Amino acid sequence: MKLQNDLILRAARGEEVERTPVWLMRQAGRVLPEYRKVREKMGGFKELVESPEFACEVTIQPVDILGVDAAIIFSDILVIPEAMGLPYQMMEAKGPWFEKTVQTAADIDALRVASGEDLHYVLEAIRLTKEALSGRVPLIGFAGAPWTIFAYMIEGGGSKTFSKAKKFLYTHPDLAHKLLDKITQSTLNYLLAQVKAGADMLQIFDSWAGVLSPEQYKEFSLRYISRICDGIKAAVEVPITVFAKDAFFARKELGLIHCDTIGLDWTMDIAESRALIGNMKTLQGNMDPCLLYAPDQVIVDETVKMLKAFGKHRHIANLGHGIYPDTEKEKVKLFVNTIKEFRF
Amino acid sequence: MKLQNDLILRAARGEEVERTPVWLMRQAGRVLPEYRKVREKMGGFKELVESPEFACEVTIQPVDILGVDAAIIFSDILVIPEAMGLPYQMMEAKGPWFEKTVQTAADIDALRVASGEDLHYVLEAIRLTKEALSGRVPLIGFAGAPWTIFAYMIEGGGSKTFSKAKKFLYTHPDLAHKLLDKITQSTLNYLLAQVKAGADMLQIFDSWAGVLSPEQYKEFSLRYISRICDGIKAAVEVPITVFAKDAFFARKELGLIHCDTIGLDWTMDIAESRALIGNMKTLQGNMDPCLLYAPDQVIVDETVKMLKAFGKHRHIANLGHGIYPDTEKEKVKLFVNTIKEFRF
Repeated sequence: MKLQNDLILRAARGEEVERTPVWLMRQAGRVLPEYRKVREKMGGFKELVESPEFACEVTIQPVDILGVDAAIIFSDILVIPEAMGLPYQMMEAKGPWFEKTVQTAADIDALRVASGEDLHYVLEAIRLTKEALSGRVPLIGFAGAPWTIFAYMIEGGGSKTFSKAKKFLYTHPDLAHKLLDKITQSTLNYLLAQVKAGADMLQIFDSWAGVLSPEQYKEFSLRYISRICDGIKAAVEVPITVFAKDAFFARKELGLIHCDTIGLDWTMDIAESRALIGNMKTLQGNMDPCLLYAPDQVIVDETVKMLKAFGKHRHIANLGHGIYPDTEKEKVKLFVNTIKEFRF
Repeated sequence: MKLQNDLILRAARGEEVERTPVWLMRQAGRVLPEYRKVREKMGGFKELVESPEFACEVTIQPVDILGVDAAIIFSDILVIPEAMGLPYQMMEAKGPWFEKTVQTAADIDALRVASGEDLHYVLEAIRLTKEALSGRVPLIGFAGAPWTIFAYMIEGGGSKTFSKAKKFLYTHPDLAHKLLDKITQSTLNYLLAQVKAGADMLQIFDSWAGVLSPEQYKEFSLRYISRICDGIKAAVEVPITVFAKDAFFARKELGLIHCDTIGLDWTMDIAESRALIGNMKTLQGNMDPCLLYAPDQVIVDETVKMLKAFGKHRHIANLGHGIYPDTEKEKVKLFVNTIKEFRF
């Protein structure tokens, strides 16, 4: 089906656009009262992720309500460790928790390489969403970067420092590579299956990039992200975005891998990032999510300033992190509309 | 009393040193079994901070046990909000918690500007420690940067995003400046009193620098740190270190304020930081605290690599963050001894 709005795909490929496209990380989520209603009905976050009909419904909500230029499938990066053999629970207000974690060579051997079909419920949600969208906007599929998934599998949950996961890198580098390799294979299978099911674009989230040193980042994260990009590009024609939160130190190297778009957070200067990354990539971001707490005029002024700093082409507007759940819906709409109405 | 080891002061002033001096953030703390023993006897962390005799005892422990080149007074950055009128509790494993927080203009008006004497127990601990050290090594005094203190006072505790504190900057910038001004005056009074009581060197910790955008950082943090540095330099001759965790984006600007030493964390490339900051400042840091989990040979190799990257002069060796409490004491000693034995 031909897309009626393919702005975001054209921006990712570096083609001309009439205006800057926009979507928001966590746009399908608690910021929308409509989401909270579905969520209440379903019970928990995981039940929602695992129910294709409901996942489809909340995926489309921000397209209808906020008018964004892309949908992103409602899911979670931790479906991969679960498909590999490490189930998790999502604890209210506390985040993810794994009963079993990976500590030894035997633990790694016991994990399987996930196939796309292990995550049939996500693929089904993608198929339903594509149909329901009927070409209005592209659908983004996603996965966590291998390092971020690894960090959760060792740590067993969130952490300020991820010191257990980092300890594993220092004490068992060979085992770390073995596990990262298994995660990488699983993730590649999963992302290719998402494209086959209908995803028009992919994003890789490296949420815990920022706890590593630049050297460790290259060895334990970037090379695996790069392998995933190469594997996807060898098989299908689909734009890939890499968002490595807090990895200011890896911008130059990110500019050299086979992705199309690089996500920036609000601590990264736009002109400096462009100079480091070069002109062959699209940049995504990078507004501070807290701007959406500001008075309307401040939101408009800062958003226009951001648009001008990125320039007309090779930019996909977004926040520099997921929307915070206590943001007012009207403020999000103002951000989106300011971008959609702005002309260079 | 003449100092027998003034390496760290000479390094801060940019003078010649025979070898690189070393101390460790959180060296007086749970990494030492000797500390844990005193702590058990005392009950809680705050009781320890408020008891000059015990604070003195644990301050000196790492000088005796680890052989570091400086002591840092055992205290907490949150003594300042408490002295201004916002008491806090330290919750086991959870961190600080404030019953009252600052939300309105009236809340700010109700706070007092702290004087040095409000923190008499810290000053007494400094006097006792200076006496007990009898000139073996310099004693470092410290305080939180105004932005970091502000963040706790608004937020009421730790946070991953400090979104409440940042919201306040966007919604009440004038009130934010008013509160930051009061914190700045209190902190300047406090640091000058620490020097009068015997501190040989001062460090300002901006633990939550990294959640701000570069622009907000200049407006709401750096200018207040700069005012404190100016106020200290106008009154006394004492080297000042500024450690703005995660503020990679402010390195150039930090190089322009009236401090002597700038702390780096392990995500910041050493050569790049030197180029941004220039040759007129000493750099402190910047080993990943997780290196101390590694096998001995890796610790030695990485430590020597770090020393060489910083060069012989204008470097104070340290970690890029406080020691993690589950680090083995012997690993810390290996790090310290590797630095003390290395010659250029």
